[in-house]
Amino acid sequence: MSEALVIFTPSGKRGRFALGTPVLTAARQLGVDLDSVCGGRGICSKCQISPGYGAFSKHGVTVAPDALSEWNAVEQRYKEKRGLIDGRRLGCQAKIMGDVVIDVPPESQVHRQVVRKAATARAITMDPATRLYFVEVEEPDMHEPSGDFERLAKALRSEWDVPEIAGGLDVLRKLQPTLREGKWRVTVALHKDHHAGPHRLLDIWPGLYEGGLYGLAIDLGSTTIAAHLCDLRTGDVVLSSGIMNPQIRFGEDLMSRVSYAMMNPGGDQEMTRTVREGMDTLITEIAREADISTREIMEAVIVCNPVMHHLLLGIDPVELGQAPFALATSDALNLDVRELGISAVNPAARAYLLPCIAGHVGADAAAVALSESPETSEDLVLVVDVGTNAEILLGNKYRVLACSSPTGPAFEGAQISSGQRAAPGAIERIEIDPVTKEPRFRVIGCDLWSDEAGFTEATAETGITGICGSGIIEAVAEMRMAGLVDGSGLIGSAEQTGTWRCQPEGRTHAYLIHDASAKGGPRITVTQGDIRAIQLAKSALYAGARLLMDEIGTDHVDRVVLAGAFGAHISPKHAMVLGMIPDAALDKVTSAGNAAGTGARIALCNATARAGIEATVRRIHKVETAIEPRFQEHFVNANALPHAIDPFPELNQIVTLPALSFNTGDGDGGRRKRRRSA
Amino acid sequence: MSEALVIFTPSGKRGRFALGTPVLTAARQLGVDLDSVCGGRGICSKCQISPGYGAFSKHGVTVAPDALSEWNAVEQRYKEKRGLIDGRRLGCQAKIMGDVVIDVPPESQVHRQVVRKAATARAITMDPATRLYFVEVEEPDMHEPSGDFERLAKALRSEWDVPEIAGGLDVLRKLQPTLREGKWRVTVALHKDHHAGPHRLLDIWPGLYEGGLYGLAIDLGSTTIAAHLCDLRTGDVVLSSGIMNPQIRFGEDLMSRVSYAMMNPGGDQEMTRTVREGMDTLITEIAREADISTREIMEAVIVCNPVMHHLLLGIDPVELGQAPFALATSDALNLDVRELGISAVNPAARAYLLPCIAGHVGADAAAVALSESPETSEDLVLVVDVGTNAEILLGNKYRVLACSSPTGPAFEGAQISSGQRAAPGAIERIEIDPVTKEPRFRVIGCDLWSDEAGFTEATAETGITGICGSGIIEAVAEMRMAGLVDGSGLIGSAEQTGTWRCQPEGRTHAYLIHDASAKGGPRITVTQGDIRAIQLAKSALYAGARLLMDEIGTDHVDRVVLAGAFGAHISPKHAMVLGMIPDAALDKVTSAGNAAGTGARIALCNATARAGIEATVRRIHKVETAIEPRFQEHFVNANALPHAIDPFPELNQIVTLPALSFNTGDGDGGRRKRRRSA
Repeated sequence: MSEALVIFTPSGKRGRFALGTPVLTAARQLGVDLDSVCGGRGICSKCQISPGYGAFSKHGVTVAPDALSEWNAVEQRYKEKRGLIDGRRLGCQAKIMGDVVIDVPPESQVHRQVVRKAATARAITMDPATRLYFVEVEEPDMHEPSGDFERLAKALRSEWDVPEIAGGLDVLRKLQPTLREGKWRVTVALHKDHHAGPHRLLDIWPGLYEGGLYGLAIDLGSTTIAAHLCDLRTGDVVLSSGIMNPQIRFGEDLMSRVSYAMMNPGGDQEMTRTVREGMDTLITEIAREADISTREIMEAVIVCNPVMHHLLLGIDPVELGQAPFALATSDALNLDVRELGISAVNPAARAYLLPCIAGHVGADAAAVALSESPETSEDLVLVVDVGTNAEILLGNKYRVLACSSPTGPAFEGAQISSGQRAAPGAIERIEIDPVTKEPRFRVIGCDLWSDEAGFTEATAETGITGICGSGIIEAVAEMRMAGLVDGSGLIGSAEQTGTWRCQPEGRTHAYLIHDASAKGGPRITVTQGDIRAIQLAKSALYAGARLLMDEIGTDHVDRVVLAGAFGAHISPKHAMVLGMIPDAALDKVTSAGNAAGTGARIALCNATARAGIEATVRRIHKVETAIEPRFQEHFVNANALPHAIDPFPELNQIVTLPALSFNTGDGDGGRRKRRRSA
Repeated sequence: MSEALVIFTPSGKRGRFALGTPVLTAARQLGVDLDSVCGGRGICSKCQISPGYGAFSKHGVTVAPDALSEWNAVEQRYKEKRGLIDGRRLGCQAKIMGDVVIDVPPESQVHRQVVRKAATARAITMDPATRLYFVEVEEPDMHEPSGDFERLAKALRSEWDVPEIAGGLDVLRKLQPTLREGKWRVTVALHKDHHAGPHRLLDIWPGLYEGGLYGLAIDLGSTTIAAHLCDLRTGDVVLSSGIMNPQIRFGEDLMSRVSYAMMNPGGDQEMTRTVREGMDTLITEIAREADISTREIMEAVIVCNPVMHHLLLGIDPVELGQAPFALATSDALNLDVRELGISAVNPAARAYLLPCIAGHVGADAAAVALSESPETSEDLVLVVDVGTNAEILLGNKYRVLACSSPTGPAFEGAQISSGQRAAPGAIERIEIDPVTKEPRFRVIGCDLWSDEAGFTEATAETGITGICGSGIIEAVAEMRMAGLVDGSGLIGSAEQTGTWRCQPEGRTHAYLIHDASAKGGPRITVTQGDIRAIQLAKSALYAGARLLMDEIGTDHVDRVVLAGAFGAHISPKHAMVLGMIPDAALDKVTSAGNAAGTGARIALCNATARAGIEATVRRIHKVETAIEPRFQEHFVNANALPHAIDPFPELNQIVTLPALSFNTGDGDGGRRKRRRSA
């Protein structure tokens, strides 16, 4: 026998190879996904494999114990120095000596899948733009003079099929000493543009580099800047962190920042400086916490709304504040992170900004689309990313629409009398007994309800400080369900509602949830103004969704995905009671967590996904809410609070929405259909 | 007749066109080189043409007076506002109404030729990488949202066939206000990489831009930095200027700068900073003198030797100081001028560095090759660029060789007892009467010889301050011809030579040229040490040339081209008397002036020439003098000063080189052949 059958699992790829062929060589010839940084020199250990011995009925092969060459000195040395799981071999050392079944464990696969925390979500397939390559470079020959860089390019071409490289001055500066220090064996980090052009030489190290290779997935929001530090070799999120967007001092919401730029000469540059400094601070802090050098950060994927997008790039956002809301640039951008005035990264680090969908629908919405991929959905899915603005996507594999709706900051607890950001001490859940009208609640940082034993002690430290976004949603919905608020949103008096907690406040009433004023603490109420703010916000959100539904010609969606940090905490039931989102079966309303951040992470770990989302964005049909008369119509119609007695709280239950009012029936409830799912 | 015959001169291109076709349209369809920035909108006037009327026997056409449509209002307005030569029409306005012969004047040709000053040189064909384009951009439509940048790209694609553009953040910042100011009609400057990739958007202006579009051709030498400011639309050199390289304080020659980098930590960065500041200063000064904004400078082509190349890029040149003289990078470089720490240019300005040929043969030598194109020469040409190092090219259309020879700074007047740089007051020409042994001379800044009436008065202001490079060459050659110096280079005594001007100095003698010491002025002599310095320098130069001749297997060259500022002033006769260069017919020894600077200018004005020189450099065979034993051999052999009585000073006269010596015959002259050209 001069040849043997080799079967790789889990791919199932198989072929016959001459005896003596290294497993790594066989894998490469078959296109099996087996990693190697050192190119088979027995020093990187990325090509670990697990041979199976015995009979493999599925594959019809019996593997003899000597199907691979004997354990060799290179493997022994590696095992002693770094450790190697028993049974594992190095694919570049083990040679094929007989029929064999070889398993490639996940950590040896280049394109391994990274499991995302959200169980419903797809895994991310690793295919990062930045990878490491170990090469041996020819030494200079003064009779055939050529630059060290050109000989490095030649080595990468012949050893790794990298057609062309380009390098910046910073790395060129390191090139000569590094090549000599490594005795002409070096590791380079190359970044491949997903469109075209040469691979960029980001960094170079002598010998086999065993330090870190990291990327950042950054969700640059109006209020917060959040970043995931990802290991570009494993896809793992090493650390997640966030800070308040320091731009907030120029205005809470986007339009006030645009106004700031319009009213103050140089105001846009001031805001650009501020947000860049904020990002630099965050990244520095992340590197410090993760105990890595900022030089190990090679890439950043950034998602943000159009105003933040322009301000980060240093472009005056003034055009985004007025029709026709023209973006300076809408396509995805590839640039040097340093061009963004951010220095806490490798000097050659690359930034990728996802494309903007429209003047009001940004790269953050594109990232949500990348995470939730409505364009592949069989059923009609509504994706809502709730923040200061709500980005709304509606579609399926045939068509995807997008719009943005100006919900304002009420959903984030801002402009609410007792409102506050989600932080320990904030009320996040509320229930109101429909009979006694008494509330009970939970605060962030404590698992007990306020009427459970030990609650007072457990919250002694944080106190009860206010209501956060999800809390105010629940409070209003519960008030409606308990009959404290009518369909028009009016809070009833103590007489009308039968509870002393509805107390006069000016010409209207407020519902008292918690009163610690006797001890100098806060008095937490839901005022008539709070109800109005929530009504405006939810009407805007609902009207946006309806507008897209009109456009697609439906009055029903199959699924609702709530994205955003807020979406992760909101109760689908209460959202539907409030009429924030169109009706759907409760079990078809899911939270996607920070989908924009997830989209950024996907783009970071998978360069092909970048081309994918760029194509998707080109196909997404944009609807501009600001000039659509029907938006105003839907907005006005959605203002009412549909009564929501909830006699069937089980899943698979359609919430029924009859109109009820203290005064007269409101115009909305009657239009809604009663339906019940199977 | 529904069609007419149109013949364009000088191209001779002809075709038949429907009556009413604009001349510009006809020209474009025939591929006639007729400029237009505004795309035929009658506002840029670049498409001026001259119709010929009457009979054209050569073309067999008789042109009726009404062969073109009538002079129209657009042309009239243009003529009144800007002026238009009588008989000229605008090609976009004049329509073909009958058979016609149309001349495209040079200034209306895109690819017009720029005549170079040196009469022997080829013209430069204009084909710059940076060009202006006038476009009308679609206004934004919020129902089909797209970025302003993407709509600009679309307009350039449809109006100008520019497939793809890319822009930096600086120009993106200007994009929106400029489009609106120009009412969606803008002019853009695009830079096309001569290899591949998108056109780069360098700048944008509202409406039709009529400001400047300039490039710099920079010759960055060890001693001086010289720059030509070129109009990228006409190819004209608007201004030339130079400064001393401020790096000179780190060492006069390259090797002392490399040593400085080796001996002083951070020394390379100090030198990088210094040269960049020097370039910035020079460019600022040029812009000021030419009365243009630095923003109008869109491009720079830089040529320099390898050490300056690395120091400019910020790369430690230490490897260039020791075998194998490895360059960090040898290929041509395209980068942002700002990356070089130079800010006195448009923020998006691009820099092109010509390729280096070898560790000792730099981008300056490549520029000389581009200017003199030995690779197209029918006869065997020796090109010598004399500076602190001499770069030597030898070749013809079959083969080109290159080397560098360490001549040292003697040829530039440095390390010469009375030496000085070429400046007013410096002796640049010398004659010594072979009978009386009396010298007469001329100084820079005065056209009179020192023995002519009025010389003293004419030089009163500058004085007579020293000898420059070309002066010392002539002095030594004249001393040899007058029998004051023997073949070994020894200056004879007053007794041996018969002149009191040969005076003892230490253990040797010196020849007195001028003595103003009585009035406190200088005493200008040629010392024995000066002769030795010149011998070393000329031997190195000659040995380099011989080495290449050996390599090619010849002892004869057909032509010699002396390049460099020094080459422009050197007397070919004296150079050959000294044995600086191999024998050639005197009329075959020409000066190319600053060929490196010319090469830079060609690359600046013609992007295709960049690809050309890159290909040529790849084919040039490099010879490393430093390790070639025959170089030492030639060097030693060339040390003698071949006697050179010059009985036939006419052109077409071969200089004969018999060996003569006070002492013994030297080993070199005998090898040389007597030849006489036809």
